[in-house]
Amino acid sequence: MAKDEYIVRLVGRVESPLTDRAAAPRQGDEGAPDSVIVLDPAVAEAVRDVRAGAGLLVLTWLDRASRDVLSVHPRGDPTRPATGVFSTRSPDRPNPIGLHRVTVLSVDGLRLRVRDLEALDGTPVLDLKPVLGDIAER
Amino acid sequence: MAKDEYIVRLVGRVESPLTDRAAAPRQGDEGAPDSVIVLDPAVAEAVRDVRAGAGLLVLTWLDRASRDVLSVHPRGDPTRPATGVFSTRSPDRPNPIGLHRVTVLSVDGLRLRVRDLEALDGTPVLDLKPVLGDIAER
Repeated sequence: MAKDEYIVRLVGRVESPLTDRAAAPRQGDEGAPDSVIVLDPAVAEAVRDVRAGAGLLVLTWLDRASRDVLSVHPRGDPTRPATGVFSTRSPDRPNPIGLHRVTVLSVDGLRLRVRDLEALDGTPVLDLKPVLGDIAER
Repeated sequence: MAKDEYIVRLVGRVESPLTDRAAAPRQGDEGAPDSVIVLDPAVAEAVRDVRAGAGLLVLTWLDRASRDVLSVHPRGDPTRPATGVFSTRSPDRPNPIGLHRVTVLSVDGLRLRVRDLEALDGTPVLDLKPVLGDIAER
């Protein structure tokens, strides 16, 4: 491994009816079906306090993205000018880490059913973070 | 590299007056000093459309965090019960990827001066994403 590189490890995977990138919604609030985050038993302790109703930020590894694309036409629309990927949410980018704002619908052990996750079936999950409330509530 | 592992590569680094984890604010909106994201020339094309005033989500690699911690006392307060890290913003977590909501103050080539970034000096940057507006504006 070269200098300035780091290894991320899957902590779970997405189970979703979405299997085709072209047919997936571009963001989770644009019509994503309910899906399930299936966590690895090794992180059971990390997830034990996640409850139904929680707002979560899910970080995924977009394993079907291209890492050598540096500019794209936003939302795949060729009439829009090519734009540097750091100004877009394109999955194609140097580190294809997806960021998804979801709501937990139910928890069954290591299985979290969630709303608004537009990741494809089988997508590796890297991290879960709570949505932050007001400073006074942290 | 084992199955279910992926390599992330630094695309830049943080320059900040913050050098000590214990003294750093816990979130960027709790008193972080202005800092600079210095991008690698290899990603110049990706960052070319980022402008002063933009709201960005910065993903960092928290290289001074511990990856084998699965529960913590939130905000380091021993009177609060130990909580699974997926319900906290602790930097200690299986994949120590930091997520920071910042505002771009100015752009000078590959140097972005930003507000509200609580990362320590030298922290590797993995990705920049725009904050999403309303669906109609995407």
